[in-house]
Amino acid sequence: MIGILGYYSTQFGELWDRSLFDLVQESINGVLSSSGIEKKQIDAVFFSNMMSGILENNLHGSSKISQLLKTNIPIFRCEAACASGGIAVHLATQYLKANSGKTVLVVGAEKMTDFSPEETVGGLMAAASGEEQEAGLTFPGLYALLAQVYLAKFSYSRTHLAAVTVKNHFHGSLNQKAHFKNTITIEQVLQSPQVAFPFGVLDCSPISDGSSALILSSNRDVLKKASNTCSIIASEVATDSISLAGRSALDELSATVIASEKSFKVAKMKRTDIQVAEVHDCFTIAEILAMEDLGFWKKGDGGKRVIQYETMIGKSSSLVVNTSGGLKASGHPVGATGIKQVGEIYLQLTGQAQGRQLKRVKHGLAHNVGGSGGTAVVTILGI
Amino acid sequence: MIGILGYYSTQFGELWDRSLFDLVQESINGVLSSSGIEKKQIDAVFFSNMMSGILENNLHGSSKISQLLKTNIPIFRCEAACASGGIAVHLATQYLKANSGKTVLVVGAEKMTDFSPEETVGGLMAAASGEEQEAGLTFPGLYALLAQVYLAKFSYSRTHLAAVTVKNHFHGSLNQKAHFKNTITIEQVLQSPQVAFPFGVLDCSPISDGSSALILSSNRDVLKKASNTCSIIASEVATDSISLAGRSALDELSATVIASEKSFKVAKMKRTDIQVAEVHDCFTIAEILAMEDLGFWKKGDGGKRVIQYETMIGKSSSLVVNTSGGLKASGHPVGATGIKQVGEIYLQLTGQAQGRQLKRVKHGLAHNVGGSGGTAVVTILGI
Repeated sequence: MIGILGYYSTQFGELWDRSLFDLVQESINGVLSSSGIEKKQIDAVFFSNMMSGILENNLHGSSKISQLLKTNIPIFRCEAACASGGIAVHLATQYLKANSGKTVLVVGAEKMTDFSPEETVGGLMAAASGEEQEAGLTFPGLYALLAQVYLAKFSYSRTHLAAVTVKNHFHGSLNQKAHFKNTITIEQVLQSPQVAFPFGVLDCSPISDGSSALILSSNRDVLKKASNTCSIIASEVATDSISLAGRSALDELSATVIASEKSFKVAKMKRTDIQVAEVHDCFTIAEILAMEDLGFWKKGDGGKRVIQYETMIGKSSSLVVNTSGGLKASGHPVGATGIKQVGEIYLQLTGQAQGRQLKRVKHGLAHNVGGSGGTAVVTILGI
Repeated sequence: MIGILGYYSTQFGELWDRSLFDLVQESINGVLSSSGIEKKQIDAVFFSNMMSGILENNLHGSSKISQLLKTNIPIFRCEAACASGGIAVHLATQYLKANSGKTVLVVGAEKMTDFSPEETVGGLMAAASGEEQEAGLTFPGLYALLAQVYLAKFSYSRTHLAAVTVKNHFHGSLNQKAHFKNTITIEQVLQSPQVAFPFGVLDCSPISDGSSALILSSNRDVLKKASNTCSIIASEVATDSISLAGRSALDELSATVIASEKSFKVAKMKRTDIQVAEVHDCFTIAEILAMEDLGFWKKGDGGKRVIQYETMIGKSSSLVVNTSGGLKASGHPVGATGIKQVGEIYLQLTGQAQGRQLKRVKHGLAHNVGGSGGTAVVTILGI
């Protein structure tokens, strides 16, 4: 069994007085302290970060973390665009399964707000194809193309998309670490400045700074001693063509469909066994597609189901989604996001989610996407 | 057992008419063809690349390879500066040990010569600390500091360093894929334009384009059917402080010492069991330090031993080093280097090294370093 026995996240937001490795240091100290694990118990580190090379000429993070930790243990940097964190968790589980270590640290971070919007947005486009970059597309633009296909095909409107923002900002208002803690109405989303039709700015997740960290272990004694643990039941990865032009369909992300199928097969579980999920809502349409592609909702049903707010805290439904506030309200420091998603499920499963704690949660799922769907990671967790 | 059953490398050099993914495509096609493995047999891909984010705003290589291969399998990008390739091989072995796949492709590539020297050299400094970047250091400068300490402490001269270049260019002259195939004399090295004392330009490995690929498998049937296989006996990683200022010693790379000790312990082998090695000679001093840090030579003996050319082909010694030409003559397309090193040992062990083939080689070692020693990977292979 591979278990999670600790999680810590820094504040997400515009943290202009903190450097990338300031944030990494805080989340490492935080997770060691909250888990009661000592530094010398850590056998390896998996570090996720997407953009520090482009934005601050800062690579070779393995060695930079070696210096922070004053250690010579193996450290691995993982990059898969916005799925970097999910990939780091996945490769950490491989390392434990290979029995190359017993207890590992997974830490992700991104520092995005110190740069001009052009620099950050330009750098994010490194996760798309060269052709898409040359065409002048941005990520709001790419996901807007998916949204246009979806809305047209299934006859939904911007109001349906906006319901995702309303729910996730309500959840964010319950999360002290969230980038945004304000609630938002449908009208505010619809009236927000247009970014790329059909998206207003309030359909889009923000540019954030932040770092998150997890401790994973396969050591039974260590897991037994820990106060709060859950297990990683399945972690599966799938990839897809980087270009939208190379995809077989634009109303789904095939990588999510494949990673989800594999995960539920490995876990020997049904969709209805999941009570809480963090899904990759980089844009409002992305949460709707994710709910369908993960198999929670039938293809095309997303619009009518999201508007019923059935996955919102307090609606006493069987599945609550993005209790952290999702990428939309919790924020999206890229390298940290996939780790925060798994961490949020850990908090829910171990009863540590404070004001947003759900009742009777036994199994949860985290879903992390890179780019416009070129990589997807699905992690199923349980207590 | 984890075996290697195929290796392919593109030409290394200034390949101005080839893009990064042109090179990746050639090496993938080449390794599938030479190994007789079909694309559908590949369960996962590990892709190593350092600088494409910085140099061409090109990240999320996992998805780009998904598009090339028309596949949805898991693909992972690895980055540890100049040790990216060694790390990719290491993580691929973890994946096989974890039994998450049976046959995996490891491919590394770097495209470095299409940019201004300032861009490429500036980008390479992303592998060093922020302080070292701000101080105006370059990698020749960092390794020159190590060389100065070593030469002063053990009373050697530039001539001792130059012997590394002479040997490795002779080896490169036997390797059709090498960036440089010309032999070089001690006098030419000593008279070459000074880069950073004590280095002339001929003490330094070049900026190269290229891609290399390996097929690894844990499937006994697949390995049995393959014409040429060797096994990975050990693969170990260690890290160290990114800044030279944070190191305990400047006449050794501690990460190499630690990774080497661990590898020989896992392999249950002695240094004298190794007949062929590829060591990380990014600069002449680096090969001398590597030979000592790996435990082949006593600390401080490197200068007097290298000048005897005992590790050169044809000297009928017990250990021959850098038969590919090393980074110095074979070239150093960063993401490919660690994979080419393992590939060269594979060629030697399976009798495919053509004009530079050694006789009676049973065990070999590959040694890959990131930055100025912040990451080291040691791989021991055997037949």
